[in-house]
Amino acid sequence: MIRGNVMVGQSGGPTSVINASLVGVFKTAKDEGCKTVYGMRNGIEGLLEERYIDISDYIKNDLDIELLKRTPSSFLGTCRYKLPAAAKAPELYGRIFEILKKLDVEYFFYIGGNDSMDTIMQLSEFGRSIGSDIRFMGVPKTIDNDLDKTDHTPGYGSASKYIATAMKEIIRDAKTYPNDSVTVVEVMGRNAGWLTASSSLSRSEDCMGPDLIYLPEVTFDHNKFVEQIREAKRREKAVIVAVSEGIKTRDGKYVCEANKKSNITDAFGHKLLGGTALYLSDFLTDNLGVKSRGIVLSTLQRCASHLVSRRDITEAFMAGADAVRAALAGESGKMIVFKRISNAPYSIVTDIMDIREVANKEKCVPKEWIVNDGTYVSEEFDVYARPLIIGELSPFMVDGLPRHLFIDK
Amino acid sequence: MIRGNVMVGQSGGPTSVINASLVGVFKTAKDEGCKTVYGMRNGIEGLLEERYIDISDYIKNDLDIELLKRTPSSFLGTCRYKLPAAAKAPELYGRIFEILKKLDVEYFFYIGGNDSMDTIMQLSEFGRSIGSDIRFMGVPKTIDNDLDKTDHTPGYGSASKYIATAMKEIIRDAKTYPNDSVTVVEVMGRNAGWLTASSSLSRSEDCMGPDLIYLPEVTFDHNKFVEQIREAKRREKAVIVAVSEGIKTRDGKYVCEANKKSNITDAFGHKLLGGTALYLSDFLTDNLGVKSRGIVLSTLQRCASHLVSRRDITEAFMAGADAVRAALAGESGKMIVFKRISNAPYSIVTDIMDIREVANKEKCVPKEWIVNDGTYVSEEFDVYARPLIIGELSPFMVDGLPRHLFIDK
Repeated sequence: MIRGNVMVGQSGGPTSVINASLVGVFKTAKDEGCKTVYGMRNGIEGLLEERYIDISDYIKNDLDIELLKRTPSSFLGTCRYKLPAAAKAPELYGRIFEILKKLDVEYFFYIGGNDSMDTIMQLSEFGRSIGSDIRFMGVPKTIDNDLDKTDHTPGYGSASKYIATAMKEIIRDAKTYPNDSVTVVEVMGRNAGWLTASSSLSRSEDCMGPDLIYLPEVTFDHNKFVEQIREAKRREKAVIVAVSEGIKTRDGKYVCEANKKSNITDAFGHKLLGGTALYLSDFLTDNLGVKSRGIVLSTLQRCASHLVSRRDITEAFMAGADAVRAALAGESGKMIVFKRISNAPYSIVTDIMDIREVANKEKCVPKEWIVNDGTYVSEEFDVYARPLIIGELSPFMVDGLPRHLFIDK
Repeated sequence: MIRGNVMVGQSGGPTSVINASLVGVFKTAKDEGCKTVYGMRNGIEGLLEERYIDISDYIKNDLDIELLKRTPSSFLGTCRYKLPAAAKAPELYGRIFEILKKLDVEYFFYIGGNDSMDTIMQLSEFGRSIGSDIRFMGVPKTIDNDLDKTDHTPGYGSASKYIATAMKEIIRDAKTYPNDSVTVVEVMGRNAGWLTASSSLSRSEDCMGPDLIYLPEVTFDHNKFVEQIREAKRREKAVIVAVSEGIKTRDGKYVCEANKKSNITDAFGHKLLGGTALYLSDFLTDNLGVKSRGIVLSTLQRCASHLVSRRDITEAFMAGADAVRAALAGESGKMIVFKRISNAPYSIVTDIMDIREVANKEKCVPKEWIVNDGTYVSEEFDVYARPLIIGELSPFMVDGLPRHLFIDK
């Protein structure tokens, strides 16, 4: 069966598995008979400039498919472009539909987080209002795991695996010295503490895990923090603390703002965070006289594709593939979600969800999963998160380094 | 043949392969008939407190050996303890030899960097002065690669592989955005730029590598830096810069000192560094108005055992094994060194070197390997370093995380 063309894009912060979703869209669309699968460069921002590729020019065989699964960051390039409301910029929307029409695009897929799902919502609503037949589907992606209505998001499992592995290694490194010390490890996560909570997964037969975990869901109190560190130091020479970059004090200010000269915001109006670990380690040295080191896991959390969760890769592919199947079945204005069937054995299925239920919403770590006076996560979190980091996908090593697929611009 | 007992210790900053050297000492000593192989906890500092283990209590079979090779950081614990000169503290030296005599130790091995080799030098000289038969051998270890008289040091290859891999992933992450940006990646290395130079190894068929590399061997000039970034921005939207934490300005001050509240020093009198990348990224935003991000690779450079160089692991084992063979042959006051026989095919042999030739000396990147007005390294560096990152050793994954061998204290 011959079908129309596909346009697919990637948006927002990249992940280690966002290209597995792209492969899922591409391969399924081709298998199902779609003629051309276009990839927009740098998301909707590039589409507006008519920058796109025919993905078949880059994925020529099954080896390319496997290589792209192992390539971190957004293969097509990404953007942080926020579409204005259609009522405010009808000519912009007209332009997008004009470009799509010119390319005979019938199916449109956007791989992204909650901000990007807003784009799908706007486009599908505008399309409906002008009687367009183009189907718009969202493919979830974010290491932050903060999308609503889905059990978890592709990208979270691999970021968690990286964080838990790095924590194990950092803990082993810190505890090898005989001296007293506090190591403060800063983990990504603006308002949702899912990633920081994953540091607890380092706890295993051969590792105690971090001593204290501070999530953005809990108001941060400097005095309590000092007391909790002092208490932990009674048990351990080398204390290890995981903190979210997004922890805030009672007045609603980010802890890291105390350290910042400026308050730059991104295109979505989010303040740029960073510096929490360094600020807190200086703070501890000043207040407890203890040697303290701040470690920032930084962007490697989202791009360390040399260490991914096999399960995450498989599910990311599945999310892309099922978005295509849903669109071909006539769905539009929806996003693929995961529903968990059971924990042991781990089993999920995909479903589709109205995009309005998802866009612009944030899912945080449930209050009842945060324990020890806000300094750790519960067994329930462990049962939820541990299955997501299982399994490996070996990188293709060439001359000692992981090989990636890339667009020669 | 039955031989006397062995004492082995690990000192200074840990690496991903320091335990492979420990395994090399242990296995070879046992194979050669040594009775007990003791491991001092936290190096010479722990020995003075009579804290040691019988390593056979922990390595019981070949699986344990393989697991220990895959365990980062110093299995026995480490220290940064500097032995005073024997003339100033004869009772301390008397104490050490008394403990060694009590345990029937005939062979003493210390795995460490240039500061630790000073310990071997002092002990072997004191031993000679009191007519002791104990043999003292140094096993080289440092990610910094700054030991003199050896082609390279165990630990450097794996740290380089981690840095080059992380750089590839960071570059891919940074270049996925359509916006102008500068990413400043801070690499370890106080006075020697070997590790920072390794960021250039990320350059391969699928990666351009960093645009600029700043080593501590070159005096850092803020004005030149701004000009060089401005120039790079003409060619690339997303500019990537690798900087050593130890870069200094003309007045001999570390660049990161501008950002520091205090100047803490460690037991060897070295200033604690850090903050260079964040300082420089703020500096660029202020001076060029460009979005800039600082990334610090931090301690993962020395403890990310989930990604090691197979060649480095093999050579680290060999350094430990050959130190034992040399000691059994009667050598003392020496360190194992590597001599390169050829680059293609890569081939090295070990040799022994008088410890006085090595201790307290630092080897820097040769001036003639630093090119582009001090902003890159030459092809000669590539030929030298690339063979060191070849090959992988898969971690033993349990429930999605690398497993480590540990001492249940």
